[in-house]
Amino acid sequence: MITDPARLASFAHDEAAGAPYALPAAVVRPRDTGEVAAVVAYCAERGVPVVARGAGTGLSGGANAVEGCVVVSFAAMDRVLSIDPDERLAVVQPGVVNDHLRAACAAKGLWYPPDPASAPWSTIGGNVATNAGGVCCVKYGVTRDYVLGLEAVTGRGEVVRLGRRTAKSSAGFELAGLLVGSEGTLGLVTEITLRLRGERAQEHTVVGYFDDLPSAGRAVAHVVAAGVVPSALELVDRYCLRAVDEWKNMGLTDGGDVLLLARCDAPGAAGLQEADTVLACFEAAGATWSARSADPAEADALFAARRLVYPALERLGMVLSEDICVPRTLVPEMLARLERTAESNGVRIASLAHAGDGNLHPMLVVPRGDERQLARGREVFEEVVDQAIALGGTVTGEHGVGLLKMRGLARELSPAVVDLHRGIKRVWDPAGILNPGKVFTA
Amino acid sequence: MITDPARLASFAHDEAAGAPYALPAAVVRPRDTGEVAAVVAYCAERGVPVVARGAGTGLSGGANAVEGCVVVSFAAMDRVLSIDPDERLAVVQPGVVNDHLRAACAAKGLWYPPDPASAPWSTIGGNVATNAGGVCCVKYGVTRDYVLGLEAVTGRGEVVRLGRRTAKSSAGFELAGLLVGSEGTLGLVTEITLRLRGERAQEHTVVGYFDDLPSAGRAVAHVVAAGVVPSALELVDRYCLRAVDEWKNMGLTDGGDVLLLARCDAPGAAGLQEADTVLACFEAAGATWSARSADPAEADALFAARRLVYPALERLGMVLSEDICVPRTLVPEMLARLERTAESNGVRIASLAHAGDGNLHPMLVVPRGDERQLARGREVFEEVVDQAIALGGTVTGEHGVGLLKMRGLARELSPAVVDLHRGIKRVWDPAGILNPGKVFTA
Repeated sequence: MITDPARLASFAHDEAAGAPYALPAAVVRPRDTGEVAAVVAYCAERGVPVVARGAGTGLSGGANAVEGCVVVSFAAMDRVLSIDPDERLAVVQPGVVNDHLRAACAAKGLWYPPDPASAPWSTIGGNVATNAGGVCCVKYGVTRDYVLGLEAVTGRGEVVRLGRRTAKSSAGFELAGLLVGSEGTLGLVTEITLRLRGERAQEHTVVGYFDDLPSAGRAVAHVVAAGVVPSALELVDRYCLRAVDEWKNMGLTDGGDVLLLARCDAPGAAGLQEADTVLACFEAAGATWSARSADPAEADALFAARRLVYPALERLGMVLSEDICVPRTLVPEMLARLERTAESNGVRIASLAHAGDGNLHPMLVVPRGDERQLARGREVFEEVVDQAIALGGTVTGEHGVGLLKMRGLARELSPAVVDLHRGIKRVWDPAGILNPGKVFTA
Repeated sequence: MITDPARLASFAHDEAAGAPYALPAAVVRPRDTGEVAAVVAYCAERGVPVVARGAGTGLSGGANAVEGCVVVSFAAMDRVLSIDPDERLAVVQPGVVNDHLRAACAAKGLWYPPDPASAPWSTIGGNVATNAGGVCCVKYGVTRDYVLGLEAVTGRGEVVRLGRRTAKSSAGFELAGLLVGSEGTLGLVTEITLRLRGERAQEHTVVGYFDDLPSAGRAVAHVVAAGVVPSALELVDRYCLRAVDEWKNMGLTDGGDVLLLARCDAPGAAGLQEADTVLACFEAAGATWSARSADPAEADALFAARRLVYPALERLGMVLSEDICVPRTLVPEMLARLERTAESNGVRIASLAHAGDGNLHPMLVVPRGDERQLARGREVFEEVVDQAIALGGTVTGEHGVGLLKMRGLARELSPAVVDLHRGIKRVWDPAGILNPGKVFTA
């Protein structure tokens, strides 16, 4: 148990820009489910808040400590317990890092698809808490699609096993799926049974540069209409490209203003056909330059550059990052609205997007410590969230609600649905100790 | 509203053999969500039970009327409201028949995969209630995997919209997924937003005959170990084949005792490669005869024959049908246990199985009206259920719990998990009027 204030500070918050947090009263690092259950039971009896924490890479404040809380860090429960190649299952502890699991699977010819940008650091427990996505979700789905079963500790300190190890089941309510994305408000996940896939076929990369966001948006719409489901379809706008160039001098902006990166992985010749279709879509939308990349190293470098966007922007100030998701045919419309919103507010919105599934990450950079600009940026993003909702979208595609999307969620859901959330929380956590004040108000 | 006892009888039960039911007090056939909400609100105020009903093709008694209840038939809410090819979404009313939706999708070059054997009659609302599966689930997943959003009426008579239209979302609890498979105990689903796929590639069929269940089981295990994910992998045993032959004289038993039917649909040459791998697996397991079918009509006829098994057995008596699902590598072990159980109990268990995902449908035929043999059959199947649970399996892969699997479910889930079910039900249905006495005891 950690109670030294100097050390507590590093467990006080995640990476959400400007979300409130407090110093925890204590941090515990349980080694097994029994210890988790004991901590929760102790806290339930005394009404002490409990905040679960993986790697702290969240972007919504879901892992931020609240006044007087105990932070339960899963750093010491970081083992891959088993990988079964025939059943295509992995059983893991919540603290295992996403990339470590992926490597362990790859060593057995298997693949765990969800690949959030945080994969080198974020944990499966955190991925489960936020229903994390990533680049390949456009074809392969999100974390929830891979969670078959869970062990969890409820707010009463009870250990429950939910879900299954079988390919399918209709036995009772889908409680494992309910816990995925519940951000530590219903239970603390202590073990996860994950579905795996076999190794994927070779990916073919298609690169396109565009003069502006509308033409890149049209290219995305063309791909959607062509019926191709790429295994990645990422958009990086001029502000993002420039930030990476200024840092790494990669020459990304030499090709043009907006970059689209697509990958196709249908097996055999079908994959090449898909890639050629995507290329034709890029060209039809007015790409200034486009090509099917013949060099895997070059293709990987472009995807690596995409991952550098966030740290590159962080060099320039505090990055406010949105996570809206709109119906995918409305990506061009949402991009146009982002441009108008930026203009009317006199700000610069940088956009990175999982364009193929309509999940946009508009970003605003504000000078560190400038509370006025931070507040202003938040207001701009509330406008953006309203526009996403108006287009039939959602306030968070993959980051979770945490603290930062609470206002938006209250607008997305009807009061009756929020009441269902509150009722369900009372069932799992009658004392109201699990991550209180997150996602929705009590 | 129907209250004529003669007409009420046809709404009193589904197709579950030997599950208890009562005559409903009334049957209503609402035309829209407002009418559903009005009926539920009326019943909630008076404590009148409400049982939702699709086509009544269920096999667990989930739609069986209870004493004094109002049956809400969705027969008049049977429209496909929209199909959006670019978003790959369909919005439907609950009463639309599965095959009708599939045809409407196919007309637009789209595909709704879940294909229960009841597809010509069963409704999407009923499929949602039981989280229905089918033949192609082994590769393409079950109903829940295709439900993005729902409109539902809670037990308070409130209309709520759950889920999304977007490719992904982390906005609050996954309440749409919670309703899928809840068998009408939490809410009445009044509209469903479904994810679609593009038309599938051509399927290649592989047929294998085997001398006995163990060798067919080994063939399934070989396919699993080879890493091929077929788009169908069905097992039909000797008793099933004989019943169809005796009825339709199709010569199914000429080839051998146990039939495996596999399909592969990877695009292009990859599909043929997969089919050849499956063929090699069948041969390695000792198939007495096996071939990749060159004739699509012949292949379709074999799958059609598989669908005739249940009606063919029904000619012989009342069919008790199980729905266990075990980890797929344990299919051979489960088949062996079924043979031993049949032998030790002196009964004949016929087996039809979605073998590729471990979902077995053992069936017992008992003379109609013979209560003693019916009770005996039930006890034999409780043994079978216990064995499935012992192998890490589940009591129902795709039929739902209804009335017939309640005893099994209580053994599969811990008391704490059943208590979570009860608590969640109280949140959605505080008066306890929605399908009372189903799935778990109050």
